[in-house]
Amino acid sequence: MKIKLKEINGSIVAATGFLASGVFCDIKKLGTGKGSNKGQKRDLALIVSEAPATVAGMFTTNQVCAAPVKVCVERMKKGTAQVVVVNSGNANACTGKQGMADAREMVAFTEKTLALSPGRALVGSTGRIGVTMPMDNVRAGILEAAMELGTTAAHADRATEAIMTSDTKPKQVAVEFQLGGKTVRIGGICKGAGMIQPGMSSTGARPAALPGGRAQALHATMLGFITTDAAVGQKVLQAALNEAVANSFNRITVDGDMSTNDTVLVLANGLAGNKKFSLSSTAGKLFQAALNHVCLELAKKIVRDGEGVHRVVTVRVNGAKTIQDADAAARAVANSALVKTSWHGGDPNWGRIIDAIGYSPATVVEEKIDIGYSAIGGKKILWSLKRGQPTQATFKQLCAAVAPKEFELHINLNLGKANAVMYAADLTEEYVDFNKGDVTDASSLGG
Amino acid sequence: MKIKLKEINGSIVAATGFLASGVFCDIKKLGTGKGSNKGQKRDLALIVSEAPATVAGMFTTNQVCAAPVKVCVERMKKGTAQVVVVNSGNANACTGKQGMADAREMVAFTEKTLALSPGRALVGSTGRIGVTMPMDNVRAGILEAAMELGTTAAHADRATEAIMTSDTKPKQVAVEFQLGGKTVRIGGICKGAGMIQPGMSSTGARPAALPGGRAQALHATMLGFITTDAAVGQKVLQAALNEAVANSFNRITVDGDMSTNDTVLVLANGLAGNKKFSLSSTAGKLFQAALNHVCLELAKKIVRDGEGVHRVVTVRVNGAKTIQDADAAARAVANSALVKTSWHGGDPNWGRIIDAIGYSPATVVEEKIDIGYSAIGGKKILWSLKRGQPTQATFKQLCAAVAPKEFELHINLNLGKANAVMYAADLTEEYVDFNKGDVTDASSLGG
Repeated sequence: MKIKLKEINGSIVAATGFLASGVFCDIKKLGTGKGSNKGQKRDLALIVSEAPATVAGMFTTNQVCAAPVKVCVERMKKGTAQVVVVNSGNANACTGKQGMADAREMVAFTEKTLALSPGRALVGSTGRIGVTMPMDNVRAGILEAAMELGTTAAHADRATEAIMTSDTKPKQVAVEFQLGGKTVRIGGICKGAGMIQPGMSSTGARPAALPGGRAQALHATMLGFITTDAAVGQKVLQAALNEAVANSFNRITVDGDMSTNDTVLVLANGLAGNKKFSLSSTAGKLFQAALNHVCLELAKKIVRDGEGVHRVVTVRVNGAKTIQDADAAARAVANSALVKTSWHGGDPNWGRIIDAIGYSPATVVEEKIDIGYSAIGGKKILWSLKRGQPTQATFKQLCAAVAPKEFELHINLNLGKANAVMYAADLTEEYVDFNKGDVTDASSLGG
Repeated sequence: MKIKLKEINGSIVAATGFLASGVFCDIKKLGTGKGSNKGQKRDLALIVSEAPATVAGMFTTNQVCAAPVKVCVERMKKGTAQVVVVNSGNANACTGKQGMADAREMVAFTEKTLALSPGRALVGSTGRIGVTMPMDNVRAGILEAAMELGTTAAHADRATEAIMTSDTKPKQVAVEFQLGGKTVRIGGICKGAGMIQPGMSSTGARPAALPGGRAQALHATMLGFITTDAAVGQKVLQAALNEAVANSFNRITVDGDMSTNDTVLVLANGLAGNKKFSLSSTAGKLFQAALNHVCLELAKKIVRDGEGVHRVVTVRVNGAKTIQDADAAARAVANSALVKTSWHGGDPNWGRIIDAIGYSPATVVEEKIDIGYSAIGGKKILWSLKRGQPTQATFKQLCAAVAPKEFELHINLNLGKANAVMYAADLTEEYVDFNKGDVTDASSLGG
């Protein structure tokens, strides 16, 4: 569906009736007075709708799943929410019964603070694994954040900063479009830089085949929060989010590790006053296209800001027998240590690429494989391999094709009609240096 | 089976009737006169038995499979061989019909040079992918190597050097033991440092479940050549090799990438004069135990000398529901970029470990997972996590447990009785720096 989208400011407060705030309550380094989160101070955000909103969510399929995820999955059944409380610095994962009690206290305290009915709050957490939440700080943060709520872009900026961990850049987007004669807005923020290869489902359970055709859950904490003033039925909203996430957040990888905390939530408060729609209607297709755009832009920002990332590669596998095969081949290439280091080096090394295709679970035939490179969105592909054999392209030409900070890798298996895409990061010395950790302070980040 | 093994010198020439040689014929950098293979000069080896030998082999299950592998798989059906010709510097992979013709010419020329019947030679290659073999150099190398053959440890050393690529150390082992009243020797050499996570089968085809319980082929070039003067029937030899490789070469990972060229060959020439045996007999169990020892020692040498490797971790998963689950959980941990970087940093980071267990295909229950550390072979385990919850072990104690260059990681899923082990490397800045390649010379190593 072609859609005319206008990029606007304000991300999560761009839509009518949404407020946000972000404050510092010292969740990461309790009482050290050193500040926290590698240069960013804020660590607790609130995202609030003036009116009750329809809600949909996608959650990590990791079997080791954080308490805030479990609380959200439970609350999805209601289909309605009005506030999301999010903290960075502590993932509240592997924290047992205390963790579940703390996550429940976070939502209950938020509801009480904002004088909302029970069940209206959702929660997201990211940071260290295995440490219980400093609840006195959290409660103080919620109280302060509630007082700081506002509708300006600066408020959205503060909320965005508060959810960052190893992110070096805030990640925000918002669009405006026409839907059934009404002006509708969708905006979002997200965070994530390492432990990034989300495989989310709407229940956190592993489906036989994940949206996007993945045969099984693979391998971040990424958190995404989306707000819209469109009026959308709950089932339609969840279906639209499934589709949007399958083609965005579930198609990115920084390091191949799937987090215990991955969460995407969308709140639709209906204040734009449009008529509700089915997904198959024109309005539905427009809404889907706009949500897809917001999710994909946010997801790509995560890869670009991935830990130590120098290059981002769009891996396109075409012509697979099945969508599972296309996905498996794309993920094998996108997660190969040897392929990722060669991208870092600006080395076209198709030998490593075909090696990864060959060991992937996908059915492939060496003599049918094409491998080529193009600019982002480029129609002109420089083929390095055709039908399993090197082309006449020179090494110099191939190096030039993989020199840009972003490029597309085209793999054609020539066995069928199924396609898949992955947005992948290179692997650099900085990634290793950052993640080998600093064992002098025990503050290694987790989920 | 407990067995008294005496470590001896000479590796592949330790057994009666075997000769070896290694020469330089400039396969890697044709005509540049700069030498080759990052400091090691030799690049072609011959391993020869005086008498026709029973042969068994294990080959990469990568669907993109090099010409020398295809030639060996064909020749396994004969069950008899007398010489292996091996080169480094060129993998003869993705080289199409010319590659197959060159691999066939390598065996035919070797047979002719040594005046052997057709079908008696096998071939192995490692090095660049996608470049045709410099056959004039190869033929000259075979002629020279045939003249240099000998039975001293120095001859084995030269052959070992000739098969190295990014290896920094030669990898050799040999043992002597008593079998049915006769003195028998088994010796071997191997190479491999990057693109290391072999998943080999006897035909190169993917079995439903690989030996060692792997549900599907995962992700090195490693080459291993083993010689013995034991008299062993072909089926017994292949079965013994399957078992030995399943518990050694197929249980190592440096970077999770499976090569196009992985090959292990064993030649048994019978000159020790023992009676042939079944595997279930006492002699069979003794032979299996000795072969297991040789393969495991060689496999561990590969991980220790892996590209940029600082630490080697034995990952033991116990108490899984099935052997496939145990294997999947062990591989997820052993190949997680975040876990591997934390090992490099001397960081016990169990949060990343339980995260990887959770996203693995294995069925796990967070509240049942134990994670601990011990010295190699150590009975005393320091538990960091019991039943999903942090223990009282201090961060300082845990750091001390993961500080040694080698340690064991113990994971108990507490769901069943199936176990698996992986021998895994850390991920370091040196690995990235080495593999990002030098795009000024187009000589990136491949299979």
